[in-house]
Amino acid sequence: MKKDYVVGIDIGGQSTKLGVVDARGQVLVQSVIKANNSTDPNVIVKELAQGVIKLIAQAGKHGQIRGIGVGAPNGNYYTGEIAFAPNLPWAANSSVNFANMLSLECGGIPVALTNDANAAAMGEMTYGAAKGMKDFIMITLGTGVGSGIVINGHVVYGFDGFAGELGHNCAVRHNGRLCGCGKYGCLEAYCSAVGVARTAREWLEMNPDEQTPLRDIQDISSKDVYQAAKEGDKMAKRIFNYTGRILGEKLADFVQFSAPEAIVLFGGLARAKEFLYEPTLKAMNENLLPLWRGKIKILFSQLKESDAAILGASALAWEL
Amino acid sequence: MKKDYVVGIDIGGQSTKLGVVDARGQVLVQSVIKANNSTDPNVIVKELAQGVIKLIAQAGKHGQIRGIGVGAPNGNYYTGEIAFAPNLPWAANSSVNFANMLSLECGGIPVALTNDANAAAMGEMTYGAAKGMKDFIMITLGTGVGSGIVINGHVVYGFDGFAGELGHNCAVRHNGRLCGCGKYGCLEAYCSAVGVARTAREWLEMNPDEQTPLRDIQDISSKDVYQAAKEGDKMAKRIFNYTGRILGEKLADFVQFSAPEAIVLFGGLARAKEFLYEPTLKAMNENLLPLWRGKIKILFSQLKESDAAILGASALAWEL
Repeated sequence: MKKDYVVGIDIGGQSTKLGVVDARGQVLVQSVIKANNSTDPNVIVKELAQGVIKLIAQAGKHGQIRGIGVGAPNGNYYTGEIAFAPNLPWAANSSVNFANMLSLECGGIPVALTNDANAAAMGEMTYGAAKGMKDFIMITLGTGVGSGIVINGHVVYGFDGFAGELGHNCAVRHNGRLCGCGKYGCLEAYCSAVGVARTAREWLEMNPDEQTPLRDIQDISSKDVYQAAKEGDKMAKRIFNYTGRILGEKLADFVQFSAPEAIVLFGGLARAKEFLYEPTLKAMNENLLPLWRGKIKILFSQLKESDAAILGASALAWEL
Repeated sequence: MKKDYVVGIDIGGQSTKLGVVDARGQVLVQSVIKANNSTDPNVIVKELAQGVIKLIAQAGKHGQIRGIGVGAPNGNYYTGEIAFAPNLPWAANSSVNFANMLSLECGGIPVALTNDANAAAMGEMTYGAAKGMKDFIMITLGTGVGSGIVINGHVVYGFDGFAGELGHNCAVRHNGRLCGCGKYGCLEAYCSAVGVARTAREWLEMNPDEQTPLRDIQDISSKDVYQAAKEGDKMAKRIFNYTGRILGEKLADFVQFSAPEAIVLFGGLARAKEFLYEPTLKAMNENLLPLWRGKIKILFSQLKESDAAILGASALAWEL
């Protein structure tokens, strides 16, 4: 039987999404498994495998699955392990050979694993904004900042499988903000959803006389800042300007590393593209060597947001 | 006849070095052509081709040359052109299809061209400190700072052939020194031979009471600083400390991009390794994510300095 379908699985701290996908990037069926408190990898993998088998049956594609692609925090393509993943209690304290375990539980269907940002890059290259590109960099602007780097048509994994930690590119600001990783001044501390909310809180404190609807919000989030910017609030717009400028400065460094044709932005914060695009592009061009100025595109993901995570993970499986 | 030899050519602003090289990295014969003032690429290429043909004859390897590898400032691997090369008057104002021209003049021997830092990386991978490595980054610390990035066994060229401009990685210091490229705060403005001399001049002015032999030197160079450090001068040692710290901070960012097994340092400034190594390694580790701390090697070139440029360029030709 021809194996013309793949399964994509996106493992997150809150929930795991899975779907059966065809070669054109259509998600035929999908489901969600809520995270539970189990710290036993065997329990988690068995539950997931049951979900996969059920979904394949639901799609009527038993025996037609080429492979399963999985995107997970700190997923390692080389080893199939999930390591150092603070948001996954069952994987936090040990290296779990997730790919092998899942493959066994799914009757031997091959499994490829990588981190979520690499999966997003694969998805964009296979079905989205980077279709046909051989050199691009995917930046995911979510709670944190992740990245997937594609050079000459292949995701860069590095010697150990962990390449592409551009969110922890440092010295965005010297003696800058403490990042969740323990370093100071990382890109993620400024250009993530959390970073934007942090900028808002800092600026409200620094500018006690400025009138802004942001002042009335408790536990301010990047969504609140986006909403305020859309309603014309000046401080909110300045926050996105500042965020875009920092992002653009760093993008220039990334371009000077691997000379990508484009940078593709994705994730919750990328929704604010009408406020982020201009300052990001401007700062990138100002910080590029003249030979690249005006030549590198900044694009936004073209995948439907609800499908993107599944599609990204599924794209991995076509290479199996 | 078996083609077991290659020619390496290193084109510089002052002179061009060429040599015939065997598979083990022995330079059989070599020669130097001094730069002249001609602005006609045809004249330059003809003169060079004559030099190549003469050298092959001298080595007794006529008909046994697999290819010619050339390292040149801004040499483009994809197009075979030398573009934007301010130090090469004959190539400064136009894109010269150097590789084709040279191949024609040398009776059809295939020619591959890349920039000098990429050539150095190829040399180190083929014959030197990075032998057997698939993922490493070469940093050349000379008058400027160049870089050659190897990922999965291949030099990274990017979508346009110009990848790997790590010397112009920015924001080494915010509102930092003006770099030759027109940007501010580039790595090259601090961690090149010129940068070290600049640090010395700035520090002498800032510390008028500090006693140091550097104070008596006119037109201070990085070599003077190295000499003073060897003689125990405290300011000179502090200058290398500062230089190494900045270099190490940036190396951490590079590691977080492509997860190389090692960084290989090369060039005039790398001679000061007894003063540069410790602060560079320390700063790199402090700025790395925990998962890489203590795991990434900093190595120094293992090629004989007089042969390195020819060897690096020649390594390109084995792939022809």
